Amino acid sequence: MKKNFLFLLVLFASITISAQDKKNGVFDGGYIKNIMEKTAKWQLKNPRHKPTDWTNGAFYAGVFAAWETTGSKDIYKALMALGNDSTNWIPGKRWYHGDDIAICQTFIDLYRIEKKQHMLRATIDTVNKLIAKPYPVKGIETIKWWWCDALFMAPPVLVKLGLETKNSNYLKYSDNYFKECYDLLYNKEERLFARDLNYVIKNDGKDRYEANGKKIFWSRGNGWVLGGLVRIMKELPADYSNRTFYEELFKDMCARIMSLQQEDGLWRASLLDPDSYPGGEVSGSGFFCYALAWGVNNGFLDSNTYRPVIEKAWIALNGCVNKDGRVGWVQPIGADPRKNFKEDSWEVYGTGAFLLAGSEVIKMYD
Amino acid sequence: MKKNFLFLLVLFASITISAQDKKNGVFDGGYIKNIMEKTAKWQLKNPRHKPTDWTNGAFYAGVFAAWETTGSKDIYKALMALGNDSTNWIPGKRWYHGDDIAICQTFIDLYRIEKKQHMLRATIDTVNKLIAKPYPVKGIETIKWWWCDALFMAPPVLVKLGLETKNSNYLKYSDNYFKECYDLLYNKEERLFARDLNYVIKNDGKDRYEANGKKIFWSRGNGWVLGGLVRIMKELPADYSNRTFYEELFKDMCARIMSLQQEDGLWRASLLDPDSYPGGEVSGSGFFCYALAWGVNNGFLDSNTYRPVIEKAWIALNGCVNKDGRVGWVQPIGADPRKNFKEDSWEVYGTGAFLLAGSEVIKMYD
Amino acid sequence: MKKNFLFLLVLFASITISAQDKKNGVFDGGYIKNIMEKTAKWQLKNPRHKPTDWTNGAFYAGVFAAWETTGSKDIYKALMALGNDSTNWIPGKRWYHGDDIAICQTFIDLYRIEKKQHMLRATIDTVNKLIAKPYPVKGIETIKWWWCDALFMAPPVLVKLGLETKNSNYLKYSDNYFKECYDLLYNKEERLFARDLNYVIKNDGKDRYEANGKKIFWSRGNGWVLGGLVRIMKELPADYSNRTFYEELFKDMCARIMSLQQEDGLWRASLLDPDSYPGGEVSGSGFFCYALAWGVNNGFLDSNTYRPVIEKAWIALNGCVNKDGRVGWVQPIGADPRKNFKEDSWEVYGTGAFLLAGSEVIKMYD
Repeated sequence: MKKNFLFLLVLFASITISAQDKKNGVFDGGYIKNIMEKTAKWQLKNPRHKPTDWTNGAFYAGVFAAWETTGSKDIYKALMALGNDSTNWIPGKRWYHGDDIAICQTFIDLYRIEKKQHMLRATIDTVNKLIAKPYPVKGIETIKWWWCDALFMAPPVLVKLGLETKNSNYLKYSDNYFKECYDLLYNKEERLFARDLNYVIKNDGKDRYEANGKKIFWSRGNGWVLGGLVRIMKELPADYSNRTFYEELFKDMCARIMSLQQEDGLWRASLLDPDSYPGGEVSGSGFFCYALAWGVNNGFLDSNTYRPVIEKAWIALNGCVNKDGRVGWVQPIGADPRKNFKEDSWEVYGTGAFLLAGSEVIKMYD
Repeated sequence: MKKNFLFLLVLFASITISAQDKKNGVFDGGYIKNIMEKTAKWQLKNPRHKPTDWTNGAFYAGVFAAWETTGSKDIYKALMALGNDSTNWIPGKRWYHGDDIAICQTFIDLYRIEKKQHMLRATIDTVNKLIAKPYPVKGIETIKWWWCDALFMAPPVLVKLGLETKNSNYLKYSDNYFKECYDLLYNKEERLFARDLNYVIKNDGKDRYEANGKKIFWSRGNGWVLGGLVRIMKELPADYSNRTFYEELFKDMCARIMSLQQEDGLWRASLLDPDSYPGGEVSGSGFFCYALAWGVNNGFLDSNTYRPVIEKAWIALNGCVNKDGRVGWVQPIGADPRKNFKEDSWEVYGTGAFLLAGSEVIKMYD
Repeated sequence: MKKNFLFLLVLFASITISAQDKKNGVFDGGYIKNIMEKTAKWQLKNPRHKPTDWTNGAFYAGVFAAWETTGSKDIYKALMALGNDSTNWIPGKRWYHGDDIAICQTFIDLYRIEKKQHMLRATIDTVNKLIAKPYPVKGIETIKWWWCDALFMAPPVLVKLGLETKNSNYLKYSDNYFKECYDLLYNKEERLFARDLNYVIKNDGKDRYEANGKKIFWSRGNGWVLGGLVRIMKELPADYSNRTFYEELFKDMCARIMSLQQEDGLWRASLLDPDSYPGGEVSGSGFFCYALAWGVNNGFLDSNTYRPVIEKAWIALNGCVNKDGRVGWVQPIGADPRKNFKEDSWEVYGTGAFLLAGSEVIKMYD
């Protein structure tokens, strides 16, 4: 089975990898550009959700990174088509829901190149509505970002928008809502995020645990959080007042995530109970690889410590791409990750995570 | 009379305006570029004051915006000629007077493109002198910016200069002097600026009121304040410590200004007594249109709420341009605005305000 | 003797200099570009130290400035060769020593153009190590930057890196370490830096004084501090929290340095006892000229007050360049400056200081 072969390959690679191997293998700049273009194009040809879906929020973040890395005109055309043809630069309808604004990250990134105000209009309107009227139903106010994946989807939109329009309000709200979610879901001892309040240990007799007795922290959710942190920190100026909070959180989580990588270079669906979830999960692993490589590239993480982790992850991730450019071994939406997902389980966000990972790994060797 | 016809036209337009109308009419990008180029050129051919006059400070701010919008080489040549030929990049002599440094906004904007230090030299010297020796006569110290129009002229110069040279002093002084003026002249209940201390109600028996018993707040002065606020906020980083002050003031004033627009889309010379000043005043209205459109484009104002106000204003402003490109219905300098100013009353700052308005309105539809 | 002739020349020049003279002479833009290219090339052909030496840190800072001023492709090639061929973008081995990271300033400046991550990699690793493990020997902790010249070498590296990677840590550490050095070595009454703790007056019976009884403040060290301050202030945003500290220090020192210029336009090796050190020292004088001109160009120093000082210095500095483009009269490394250094005493940092001076002087007349 390919997966087992991969495992051996990775073991082997992690022992013998040398400067020359890297040059010729999956760390070669030319190879990375090719595989990014190939996987992006395969995924663009195999869409699965409506363009403004949260899944596409993550995917198009990766597509944009692929364009930055490769300069491919086809990819840029696909990005502009997302705006001009598929969405008219309008995010999803639920202004109050992180899921529906994730795609705005790409709208803003493209606006920064094209500078056409209409590309920003609906994003501004939607975020303004989110701030003015955060909940659709009066009187049932809960926190805005109540599940951890939201930290990838929403705060980078507010941060990018705030810096682009020089509107401080967006930055302040992003800080506040992020902190609210952090207070609710971050476990400081474990240095991981619970998926949502249902997974926070409350000692009320209803707490959920894994088969091995450990707490439940999903790989995917924590991957999205780290990816979101990168996308916030890439934006905020070095002297931004609240940067330290994000930087500390980022470093804490990365240290923990590093310790949870499995032998084959991938992370399991449930971070603390890998045995119950034997398959390496590519979307979470892709985000981890992206975050760790970015952290090294920008001096937040120690290069010597993290480089082997990143290399193992990138080798393994590449082993999950089939010959057509399809990124497999991606945990499906909502499905119980214990059920066997497979080599041909793909999801657009898995490809997004893979592309983001590639966009930072290539910088480690350029 | 053309004005009456305009009134009807505007009424009609404001009722029937549709996406198609906008596309074909005064909201069409091509139309806006054309009318901006035409009005800018007419005004450049019909100068009226010495180049460093405060009136030209506002005009050339508009000319620069016209160049940014149209990319016209002729306009750029005219801008460079202002520096190289007419002024040698030297502002007016009265370093202590906001009027005489307003033109420096354009000097700095051009410096940012050309990067020639001599374009900045006299601006730096003048602002340094302003800070070191704020008053020409010792012992008679008053506040520096004692009339509200100064808030358009001077603070954007200090802010632009501070960011360009990374000299924090200019930012600090700008903040302090702006606040000084605000404390003196801003009426928090009315959310409008008095022209100067003579118009602040002091209950000393000498207070001035309009015929209808209301306080006197000029359209033009408040237009200049809002225009100045835009030009400050366009510059300050999103995380600048004092931004909130400017943002709150901007939003407060815009809400009030919106409520004072007249049926024909224009504002009257005296904001609270429109009946005593029947003619729509184009320079103040142009600045209001500029500020409101910028506020919507950058997320400070609610699009649905303000868009109709801006559209009415822009339609009306365009009705005040004659076939040659002359912007009329501009209240003359110093003249009593009750005296009938007319279709052919023009002033360079009226054209400046029109151009600034156009530069933001076009972004709402691009 | 040439030096005496120079002295007369300078005296003469400082009396008769007029706009026309400036245009035709050493203040002419074309002349400055030529002399910068000539001196840079002479020095590039006559290397003296290993590429990562602190001496080259100052030299290549000047070479980069020469490229910015002239746009010379040869110079740019030499800069890239420093990275690609001579150093592989790796600074000196002693991560804890300011001397060994000075060259990183140029690495980062080039990275900003080329955007290749490998140009930054070793700089990040080295600075991270500096922060994590500031001293090579455990238990013998002293302050990190214990000699004043370090303030040119190290803090600009941390500041540039912090802004480029948006990593606030680098900024914070730079601020802290700079302050530590300042507390140790800055004499607030004299407004000058002692070279190191050995030169700080401690009233312990072992204090050193000059022959004239004055305290010992080296021209070169204070020149490096002022050069370092410029390179910090050029980077930090105008609203950076600690800017005021640097700005105040810069202005204080400049005022003092101005008062210590000698008749020939140069400063002596020991600032307070010029008679014991008769020769004008070109490396310190070059840095002073650089700092004063930058201060005027960016509004920190009064143009009328400082311009004559800068002009005298620049004329004198140009008199120390021989027909081949060799910058002479540079105090050798470590040598007792009382020993006669001569017309043909050159050092790469002297050329670096000359180039930096030229890069700012030219802006005063462009």
